Amino acid sequence: MKAFVYRENGNSALEEKAKPGIKDPGDAIVKMLKTTICGTDLHILKGDVATCKPGRTLGHEGVGVIDAVGPAVTVFKVGDHVLISCISACGKCEYCRRNMYSHCTTGGWILGNEIDGTQAEFVRTPHADTSLYPVPSGADEEALVMLSDILPTGFECGVLNGKVAPGSTVAIIGAGPIGLATLLTAQFYSPAQIIVVDLDDSRLAVAKQFGATTTINSEDGKAADAIMKLTGNRGVDTAIEAVGIASTFELCQAIIGPGGTIANVGVHGKKVDLHLELLWSRNIAITTRLVDTVSTPMLLKTVESKKLDPKQLITHHFKLTEILEAYKTFEHAADTKALKVIIDA
Amino acid sequence: MKAFVYRENGNSALEEKAKPGIKDPGDAIVKMLKTTICGTDLHILKGDVATCKPGRTLGHEGVGVIDAVGPAVTVFKVGDHVLISCISACGKCEYCRRNMYSHCTTGGWILGNEIDGTQAEFVRTPHADTSLYPVPSGADEEALVMLSDILPTGFECGVLNGKVAPGSTVAIIGAGPIGLATLLTAQFYSPAQIIVVDLDDSRLAVAKQFGATTTINSEDGKAADAIMKLTGNRGVDTAIEAVGIASTFELCQAIIGPGGTIANVGVHGKKVDLHLELLWSRNIAITTRLVDTVSTPMLLKTVESKKLDPKQLITHHFKLTEILEAYKTFEHAADTKALKVIIDA
Amino acid sequence: MKAFVYRENGNSALEEKAKPGIKDPGDAIVKMLKTTICGTDLHILKGDVATCKPGRTLGHEGVGVIDAVGPAVTVFKVGDHVLISCISACGKCEYCRRNMYSHCTTGGWILGNEIDGTQAEFVRTPHADTSLYPVPSGADEEALVMLSDILPTGFECGVLNGKVAPGSTVAIIGAGPIGLATLLTAQFYSPAQIIVVDLDDSRLAVAKQFGATTTINSEDGKAADAIMKLTGNRGVDTAIEAVGIASTFELCQAIIGPGGTIANVGVHGKKVDLHLELLWSRNIAITTRLVDTVSTPMLLKTVESKKLDPKQLITHHFKLTEILEAYKTFEHAADTKALKVIIDA
Amino acid sequence: MKAFVYRENGNSALEEKAKPGIKDPGDAIVKMLKTTICGTDLHILKGDVATCKPGRTLGHEGVGVIDAVGPAVTVFKVGDHVLISCISACGKCEYCRRNMYSHCTTGGWILGNEIDGTQAEFVRTPHADTSLYPVPSGADEEALVMLSDILPTGFECGVLNGKVAPGSTVAIIGAGPIGLATLLTAQFYSPAQIIVVDLDDSRLAVAKQFGATTTINSEDGKAADAIMKLTGNRGVDTAIEAVGIASTFELCQAIIGPGGTIANVGVHGKKVDLHLELLWSRNIAITTRLVDTVSTPMLLKTVESKKLDPKQLITHHFKLTEILEAYKTFEHAADTKALKVIIDA
Repeated sequence: MKAFVYRENGNSALEEKAKPGIKDPGDAIVKMLKTTICGTDLHILKGDVATCKPGRTLGHEGVGVIDAVGPAVTVFKVGDHVLISCISACGKCEYCRRNMYSHCTTGGWILGNEIDGTQAEFVRTPHADTSLYPVPSGADEEALVMLSDILPTGFECGVLNGKVAPGSTVAIIGAGPIGLATLLTAQFYSPAQIIVVDLDDSRLAVAKQFGATTTINSEDGKAADAIMKLTGNRGVDTAIEAVGIASTFELCQAIIGPGGTIANVGVHGKKVDLHLELLWSRNIAITTRLVDTVSTPMLLKTVESKKLDPKQLITHHFKLTEILEAYKTFEHAADTKALKVIIDA
Repeated sequence: MKAFVYRENGNSALEEKAKPGIKDPGDAIVKMLKTTICGTDLHILKGDVATCKPGRTLGHEGVGVIDAVGPAVTVFKVGDHVLISCISACGKCEYCRRNMYSHCTTGGWILGNEIDGTQAEFVRTPHADTSLYPVPSGADEEALVMLSDILPTGFECGVLNGKVAPGSTVAIIGAGPIGLATLLTAQFYSPAQIIVVDLDDSRLAVAKQFGATTTINSEDGKAADAIMKLTGNRGVDTAIEAVGIASTFELCQAIIGPGGTIANVGVHGKKVDLHLELLWSRNIAITTRLVDTVSTPMLLKTVESKKLDPKQLITHHFKLTEILEAYKTFEHAADTKALKVIIDA
Repeated sequence: MKAFVYRENGNSALEEKAKPGIKDPGDAIVKMLKTTICGTDLHILKGDVATCKPGRTLGHEGVGVIDAVGPAVTVFKVGDHVLISCISACGKCEYCRRNMYSHCTTGGWILGNEIDGTQAEFVRTPHADTSLYPVPSGADEEALVMLSDILPTGFECGVLNGKVAPGSTVAIIGAGPIGLATLLTAQFYSPAQIIVVDLDDSRLAVAKQFGATTTINSEDGKAADAIMKLTGNRGVDTAIEAVGIASTFELCQAIIGPGGTIANVGVHGKKVDLHLELLWSRNIAITTRLVDTVSTPMLLKTVESKKLDPKQLITHHFKLTEILEAYKTFEHAADTKALKVIIDA
Repeated sequence: MKAFVYRENGNSALEEKAKPGIKDPGDAIVKMLKTTICGTDLHILKGDVATCKPGRTLGHEGVGVIDAVGPAVTVFKVGDHVLISCISACGKCEYCRRNMYSHCTTGGWILGNEIDGTQAEFVRTPHADTSLYPVPSGADEEALVMLSDILPTGFECGVLNGKVAPGSTVAIIGAGPIGLATLLTAQFYSPAQIIVVDLDDSRLAVAKQFGATTTINSEDGKAADAIMKLTGNRGVDTAIEAVGIASTFELCQAIIGPGGTIANVGVHGKKVDLHLELLWSRNIAITTRLVDTVSTPMLLKTVESKKLDPKQLITHHFKLTEILEAYKTFEHAADTKALKVIIDA
């Protein structure tokens, strides 16, 4: 079968590889229908993710159809259409039972990282019963690919952790795909204001169209001032960091109001400054989270009931054979205006 | 009347001052019975608290008897014995109505800071109806002085914010008075393990006596290792920072388990490092808080029902005329073994 | 001044009465601009509300302008436009400090019940600072009248108590004004399904227009069957009783799913059957609540930000001199299609 | 093997039966070490439990050692000592993933009810990985039998659902084994008052010894008056119904304070009156629950850390061959003073 394989020094490529088979009783083999590329995949290509070794098939998102199941699988059978979660969860360990699937002792984010992933014709998914979700009949499968990672990530790490509430004031720092996924799902809770900050005017235009009440281009270094002014100098109730660098985390600290929450969504490579000399008395919370995908069943319901339209995030389509082109398009988003790209397997 | 007045360059002293009078309709004048000294008072003496100007009567804790009330006061009358909260709360502003008295727009921590405080024969307390608490009949008034600040601070900023729960594992970094107050109130929730860390063996001995299940002297720089070992390498559910310096906050980050909470109690003068490069994916929360004293009614009930014995925190007694001696005793706690000192007004 | 006064035996009428004056230091006198009629007023007219004695000016809703304030009032001054809450709250008692204003020991629902109310040219409002809310500049004051009672009631007693959540399934039993207010505010949380049940097709048509996903006329006695079918036989997550009689509470018990919540909003005059023989093992909650109006500041923000349009609830307009006509119109809602009527004072 | 088998008309007896074998891949066969008798078993013997058919081996509690495991079992291996939960949970269905194991679509309370149970030499436990718990090394296995059902039931249905909190006032109606288990676990949260009500003075004496602050014999019909007096006429914060009849549920309604919670633990055979005509405006919650046993890992930690001593509940010991005698002792608790009996298999 064809698979997109990570190789060092920019040599990652679509390669021919053996079709995976059942290894553990709880495994399923899924024939991929649609997959996509995540920002994390770009990090892997650059060699930034130590757990991912050369030779690995990338990809942790997608929709497919069950091709084979191990003897312990009871929820799914061959032929079922399934949504693949980016997080594998055994459903049995201490963390899974606390609904913290991200820290599953034999799962977590392993797909396309520690084991072969979804940018291929077939993928082996461990802990299938608790890591796959049935595609509702009549669902738009392309839309559901957005539920593998980006929408639960925005929702759980940003919206839920950030305690977005009716009438509240929210700032989302970063209008990339993950910031926009946060923006879409923040609206489940009817906040009064959603301020989106980015350096790219075209992304801010998308944010406006996706429901931001105000957008701010932070190029002039005056975003904090602008937000304090917008909030009557009180600061925001929720500041969501959706970039992953020191300066955006700094901005969150500058605009958070007393009693507010800074919800970190971004993947950080370096330590940041925490201004406890100012914040110790401000009654704030800072949260971090690797997505648990516990909200997947709920998100499926919001898609079915048309409270959420994930397709808004999809800008480009490719075939698996065009995956290098897909990567280029996704990587140069500033030029291509790409948000998420769909790859037909 | 006599009052302990902050003066620069170590010239603070017990001075003669005019007895305060009613200024606003919601004020009460309280004749002090008992007060105490807080770590913050020491900071003021060193000139570290910019809001507190020379000439200010210090003190934000104590028990007294109502001497006069303004026309808007409806809860208290002359002769009532009252507990004075360190936080003044109007009960009307946005923050008070969100139970965040610490950020009251006309109150907060003002006593002995922005207005004259309780280390005197009389004190004017603004917003009396919502900032004083009736002393239950038969209560030990000396014990209640511990409810002005230290016990609600430990409980709200450490225990509540830290989500201490039955069966959980808690580490308290710092066994000074505030760490010990946290230790006492953490036991309301029956955690399985309470590990207390300090540099002073005699304070650790007190911690053991107050209910710590393990104590660790961190002098050897191996406290993190010891705690990881004690928790089967999982880390703690709750890490409470009760010192206010970078290294103790660093220790909290090293020992916090996935899904855990770092509750900051300490007053910090400098920024600290936040290791988001490690913590972004660990599903943790970090909380800060200036005490709101919303738990005061609850704490009064736990004292009445003997679930909490605040007197354990009291080590020394002085008269108001001996207040310089009291300050010295409190300041040199390593030698005097002082925790909290009671000053009879 | 003119005031609508409750008299026995159907003799309630617009009468001439002395203008009220300040009685307690926390009082304000409000010159009424707009008021409305509540279902509870109809109960009073029938003699069903024992606490309301003949001679009482009715009304507990409205918007007005401050005419005078007592010496303890600090938040408002003469000339301020204010929203009057149906609940008076001292802000000082145990219940107020627990945010349970409905049980304020010197307040609660007293306006137009135990003291003279708002269906008059002027009203005395006790505890003004914590029972009135500033009208935001530029606000539509007519719309805000809906925030005195009906919208916080639907939201707090129905939506908040009922734990309405994104993706969840909600049934609202009763499409009268209060059921519709619940319907409007339930959408703050993006439930997947909102099923509204009533006996009146025209009210169900309004419900559909206000956002119900399904409406059911329960005349055939088969509403429970229909709802179980709509929910794949699982029952609803939230059942909201917005009528106040035994049969509608019975319906809620028949349709509640495991883990669900029955939120009672209706005013009940008689005891009901509780089927603990079926429900003891179903992990449900049943909640009751007299509105606390703690959500008023939040609701004001949702109106300002256009997440909520209260004017949808207003069907008729009258002058104070036409108040008997207004009562008739409101009482005969089946014929007049009245929801809420605005009375200009 | 020997098994205690339910037969109609009082003919239940210890019978010889085939040793069970693995049926589903997730099954384990457990060789029983210790089991006990539950109040529900008595109901079965009387023919009150329709789901339990003659021929069924009774018992849903116990500790044993793994004798065999199916191919899908990954957590346990032959020889492991395990605590058997009264609730079987697949860990995969909608309810299990919401932590509502009681409603597992292929589990729930089936042991000793719909499938053969633990009062035997061996038992087949379905969904072994998520329904058994490892016995901590060095644990007292007899004590752990109390964690199969009675302690999680008291804790989850009574204490957690009842929102017992530091400083709060709790009434427990019924001092049978389940009421006493509630009493023991309520103390995890340091309530100020725990009032226990029963008709049997000897059980009230046990309650006192187990931590009740007040006990009331309700024989004189004045328990409600006594409790209102004890609470300054405010009523209790939490009322826990631990009997399962109309009159005790009535008592809970009479004593619940504004804002309080009535947590039903008792198994009810008939409907009860709910006084909504009084309670609609009192801001209360009523909860029901079949135990989910989600708290089992936490309870194990409280036992290990000696916050909870389950052995207090054990009054008698028998061998499996003496099980009829054990049933008699348990049934005639008024005479025998039996709480829980241990049966060695």
